Amino acid sequence: MIGRGGKAACLVAGLAVALGVAAVARADEGMWPYDHAPVEQIRQACGFAPSQAWLDHLRLSSVDPGASAAFVSPDGLILTNHHVALSSVQRVSTPEHNYVRDGFFAATREQEIPLPGNTLKVLVSIQEVAARVTAGVKPGMSPAQARAAREAAITEIEAECLQQTGLKGEVVALYGGAHHDLYRYKEFTDVRLVFVPELQAAFFGGDWDNFCYPRWDLDIAFLRAYENGKPARVEHWLHVNPEGARDGDAVFVSGNPGRTQRLKTLGYLEYGRDLVYPERLARTQHQREVLRGYLARGEEQARRGRTLDYFYGNTLKRVEGELAGLRDPRLMAKKQADEKALRAAVEADASLASRYGGAWERLAAAYAWAAAHETDRLYRNEMPGGRFFGTALNLVRLQTEAARPDLDRLPGYHESELPDLLRRLGSPSPVYKDMEEVMAADAFRRLLGGLGADDPFVQAVLQGRTPEDAARFYLEGTRLDDAAVRRELAKDGGRGVAGSDDVLLALARRLDPLLRGQEKAFRDNVRAVEESAETDIAQARFAVYGDKAYPDATGTLRFGFGKVAGYPSATTLVPPFTTWYGLYDRALSFGDRGDFTLTARQRERRDRLDLGGVLDMACTADITGGNSGSPLVDRDGRLVGVAFDGNQTSHANQFVYDETEARCVCVDVRGILQALGTLYDARPLVDELLAGAR
Amino acid sequence: MIGRGGKAACLVAGLAVALGVAAVARADEGMWPYDHAPVEQIRQACGFAPSQAWLDHLRLSSVDPGASAAFVSPDGLILTNHHVALSSVQRVSTPEHNYVRDGFFAATREQEIPLPGNTLKVLVSIQEVAARVTAGVKPGMSPAQARAAREAAITEIEAECLQQTGLKGEVVALYGGAHHDLYRYKEFTDVRLVFVPELQAAFFGGDWDNFCYPRWDLDIAFLRAYENGKPARVEHWLHVNPEGARDGDAVFVSGNPGRTQRLKTLGYLEYGRDLVYPERLARTQHQREVLRGYLARGEEQARRGRTLDYFYGNTLKRVEGELAGLRDPRLMAKKQADEKALRAAVEADASLASRYGGAWERLAAAYAWAAAHETDRLYRNEMPGGRFFGTALNLVRLQTEAARPDLDRLPGYHESELPDLLRRLGSPSPVYKDMEEVMAADAFRRLLGGLGADDPFVQAVLQGRTPEDAARFYLEGTRLDDAAVRRELAKDGGRGVAGSDDVLLALARRLDPLLRGQEKAFRDNVRAVEESAETDIAQARFAVYGDKAYPDATGTLRFGFGKVAGYPSATTLVPPFTTWYGLYDRALSFGDRGDFTLTARQRERRDRLDLGGVLDMACTADITGGNSGSPLVDRDGRLVGVAFDGNQTSHANQFVYDETEARCVCVDVRGILQALGTLYDARPLVDELLAGAR
Repeated sequence: MIGRGGKAACLVAGLAVALGVAAVARADEGMWPYDHAPVEQIRQACGFAPSQAWLDHLRLSSVDPGASAAFVSPDGLILTNHHVALSSVQRVSTPEHNYVRDGFFAATREQEIPLPGNTLKVLVSIQEVAARVTAGVKPGMSPAQARAAREAAITEIEAECLQQTGLKGEVVALYGGAHHDLYRYKEFTDVRLVFVPELQAAFFGGDWDNFCYPRWDLDIAFLRAYENGKPARVEHWLHVNPEGARDGDAVFVSGNPGRTQRLKTLGYLEYGRDLVYPERLARTQHQREVLRGYLARGEEQARRGRTLDYFYGNTLKRVEGELAGLRDPRLMAKKQADEKALRAAVEADASLASRYGGAWERLAAAYAWAAAHETDRLYRNEMPGGRFFGTALNLVRLQTEAARPDLDRLPGYHESELPDLLRRLGSPSPVYKDMEEVMAADAFRRLLGGLGADDPFVQAVLQGRTPEDAARFYLEGTRLDDAAVRRELAKDGGRGVAGSDDVLLALARRLDPLLRGQEKAFRDNVRAVEESAETDIAQARFAVYGDKAYPDATGTLRFGFGKVAGYPSATTLVPPFTTWYGLYDRALSFGDRGDFTLTARQRERRDRLDLGGVLDMACTADITGGNSGSPLVDRDGRLVGVAFDGNQTSHANQFVYDETEARCVCVDVRGILQALGTLYDARPLVDELLAGAR
Repeated sequence: MIGRGGKAACLVAGLAVALGVAAVARADEGMWPYDHAPVEQIRQACGFAPSQAWLDHLRLSSVDPGASAAFVSPDGLILTNHHVALSSVQRVSTPEHNYVRDGFFAATREQEIPLPGNTLKVLVSIQEVAARVTAGVKPGMSPAQARAAREAAITEIEAECLQQTGLKGEVVALYGGAHHDLYRYKEFTDVRLVFVPELQAAFFGGDWDNFCYPRWDLDIAFLRAYENGKPARVEHWLHVNPEGARDGDAVFVSGNPGRTQRLKTLGYLEYGRDLVYPERLARTQHQREVLRGYLARGEEQARRGRTLDYFYGNTLKRVEGELAGLRDPRLMAKKQADEKALRAAVEADASLASRYGGAWERLAAAYAWAAAHETDRLYRNEMPGGRFFGTALNLVRLQTEAARPDLDRLPGYHESELPDLLRRLGSPSPVYKDMEEVMAADAFRRLLGGLGADDPFVQAVLQGRTPEDAARFYLEGTRLDDAAVRRELAKDGGRGVAGSDDVLLALARRLDPLLRGQEKAFRDNVRAVEESAETDIAQARFAVYGDKAYPDATGTLRFGFGKVAGYPSATTLVPPFTTWYGLYDRALSFGDRGDFTLTARQRERRDRLDLGGVLDMACTADITGGNSGSPLVDRDGRLVGVAFDGNQTSHANQFVYDETEARCVCVDVRGILQALGTLYDARPLVDELLAGAR
């Protein structure tokens, strides 16, 4: 659903490099694959053991719109976050109908607005395919060879799935590649907008309050899946519990956490702390400043750049949090102790030692290589100029890769990946050339400053122009901003690309060979080593600690649990819930201005609200970026809230799950129902939600 | 006003060891003596230069009740904090009339309740006496001799003041002893209670929210000074600005900051970080746990121990904050750089070097001595058993000291100090023997554990008993809990003490010689060295940086300024004001329970309130413990708020004043007026306050 940034744009908890150091998950910890739900752990923590049918129902009610969501009525009604739907809503907004600013509610099905370019997925089945994936890996193979063998098997399995079942198949590598499963998805491509509140209500407090709690945000959106032009009839959907959850109640979360790296080695953390994160932080800060210069030009520019600005703000808080964690000596010491214990256990067993003992050294060598090639990583590993420029590289590569045997293609261009790529290339998401020019000029300046004018890569980009002139040259000359043009070029395996003299395509053609060389070197020397060594470490962990560990998040559907709970923060207590009173306090405390402005509805209908009613909620479920829009259910499987953020009370704690302070922040179902009924006159929606509760 | 803990019990900002490292005060920084108000700095920061008359008026409107306060009507009406008046209110409360729980309002003067044992001071004049204080200090004197010479002069000056003017005189050492001023005070000893809200309204959020912001507390009390049985007619008092201050407005604060140590050396900070603070933290945590065991026995015990529990909680937050700051390498590095620069400047000037260059080494030696005598400091430097036990030592020493020439007496027993001591000894503040026994037993256990059963000090305390038996023995046997008994004993220079066989007095007699030895050793080896060396350093600082520095707080009246301002905290913004909405949000977010319970008035009269009205306020004025009850005024000198707390957003920042995050937390005048009029039916009080505004 996130058009621009994919999962990266809906990062939730600032936990993307979240590193769990406990050998065995503690109470409430873990993002569990549905086929490895820790039933006994849940029973101990919650006094309730979910049945298989209970788990299946929650899984089949869960929807992947690029982040997380859930069916909440038999007629395909879907609840997710406003910020998950934002790009799509922006795309169908116009100056006359500004749904982002004003919100939207379709009182009838006919009024529901199609959101083209969206795909929703439901995880239909999970099948273990580990043996088949690793069958081609033979002793004595180099890491690169082993990787190629696994990739070949994966490509074959995914293609076979689509062919045999018509379902999209995805081979999912878990436990650092120790396990592989085939996930089969039912897809919905006709998605329509039912309801969004005003951006200001959804994102009250703006970037300031993002990653914070307490919050008073109505970060919700209702969509509807259609099939054959009619609302999809779905068998599995979540009933609503209009009473919500109480403080201390067990809650369960289902969603698609994007990425955790809790099993990464100390060597990786040091590399990140010393090189990757400080640079990323500085660069993102700089990019945001540049963008804000553009935003300041006027209201229309501010509207155009809003999503990107939000993306930068979100990224900054996350990167700041991660870096603070990496710089916390206490955390590093903990990680060190954990790694030492695992390595000692491996060394103590001759068989484990011979199989896995070398993994850490191999990784250390890989990160040393990466550190030695830092300049390449910073300047030569992606198409410069921004995401839109990347589209040109996608088209050029589509043309060359589609003509090759599937197994020989670059990652991202395999047959099974082409539908996604084509959808992205053809997305009607508008390209604002003036904004792209500002950002591209900055990217070119950075390139020139980093590599110097004599560098071949720089020369290929600038061709003697200044960064500003080059950015203008490409953006004035290109027609790739037109989605129809891109679609036409992409047709039939990118056949039209070769004949185009578009200046951006020409740039991509010049850079492609240079980038391929760098990408291959990094793949072979770092990523392939990581995959192989981390597989070893994950397997070693299993050998030592058994199967009570959960795998790192990889963007696939996961199940979690926890309880509704406030927490101590610094020297005080943070409450488990927030009320509508707090919305008005925070707005008026700042003078009802800026990011803390009330909406007209909030101002005018205040007296109709039960101000003491619950609006948002905090719980201990273990989530991360990608969980945005995740349903929270009670032990009866009834919806009590929707996750939209994670708190950031303690940077030092965020690399290790710790239920003392880490919290998943949700819009409470009571807040949703009261808002719909009282502020938005959306009775039909309330009725549809409550039909199951009656 | 604070009965039990004196100034220590109304510590406000957790800044007691607050260490400013900037050579010259920045905007908004500083606790300025009224005769050194930085008019030019204020003009630059606020665009307004207060006149001498303006400053005199604020000074003469300021009241010292043991913390801070101000006259707010010509009829001697005084505004201070609820927590400043709490002990006094507790003293006049009974099970039938529980003013602490229920609040109190005297609708007529006749209903105002006398609060015996209180003295209010108004600073009438400041006169420099530096030359006279140091006249007796001759070259070649040891630190102890120099100290004695200064003390002799001070004692003489203070005695002379009382004799000549009838005003209480206090020689105040500023700038680490580089300056001495004689402060003359007018005293009011007839103080009556006019209004207090319920403790729950004043201290909403309890210990949790103490040292926090945002806050929604009504931490106010109104007292009235009487003279000759009638309300005191005062010439100087603060008019109220019923509109309050706006975000960004300049505000000025007047009060009695207790103690800062911003000029202490790095050696002191290291000594504190490694020895003093960790031990104090652990001990206070333990004592609070012991006390809480007592509180848990029942409602009456909880009532009795409330003040002490509050004291411990307050102390803990402060000590935790200070220790966190001392452990912050960034802070220590900053301090180190500052000290290095000053020392280099001193060394670069032969005259300065010869006069002051040795000060740092002398201090280092003193702290080394203290560290080597850590056991003595921990166990042998005070009467064990708690504050009530200390009363016995006061009586025993009163008897011996009062008989000596004034110059030879122990600190605290000089002629000019006797009235205070006698008032404290005669205070009707109740002694709860059961609570004292619990705390004394714990103190004795600590003593036994720390020194061992064979130690003479331990033997003098326990006399072969267990700690529990010894505590019971002393408390069952003593009659010192009776204020009349204490008053009788203290009469005529403690003449009655010699004839008493009270068991506590006997204990004090046994310990007195042991304690005197320890106290003298610490005075000679540490405190006298500190006084002398810090005088040198302060003088060196003046020689190097000029007179743009302010002196450390020493409990005397100071003037400060700043602006109303929110601040960024972690990743979000904290607002400059809070509203009544927030009170209801925070209460209901926690389910209206525990420390977050609404009062009956707040619940029942909610609909009468303008919920969006301002309740509390934050400003950048530089305050610390002792500023509780300080009036905040605008540039017209009109009251806009009363300080009651400091925030604690960043422990690492609290040792250095930093207006980015450090905030003085106030009850806004609008919150006071609305509460009085709407919640408490206290119209007469509102009228008295507004009389000047009309």
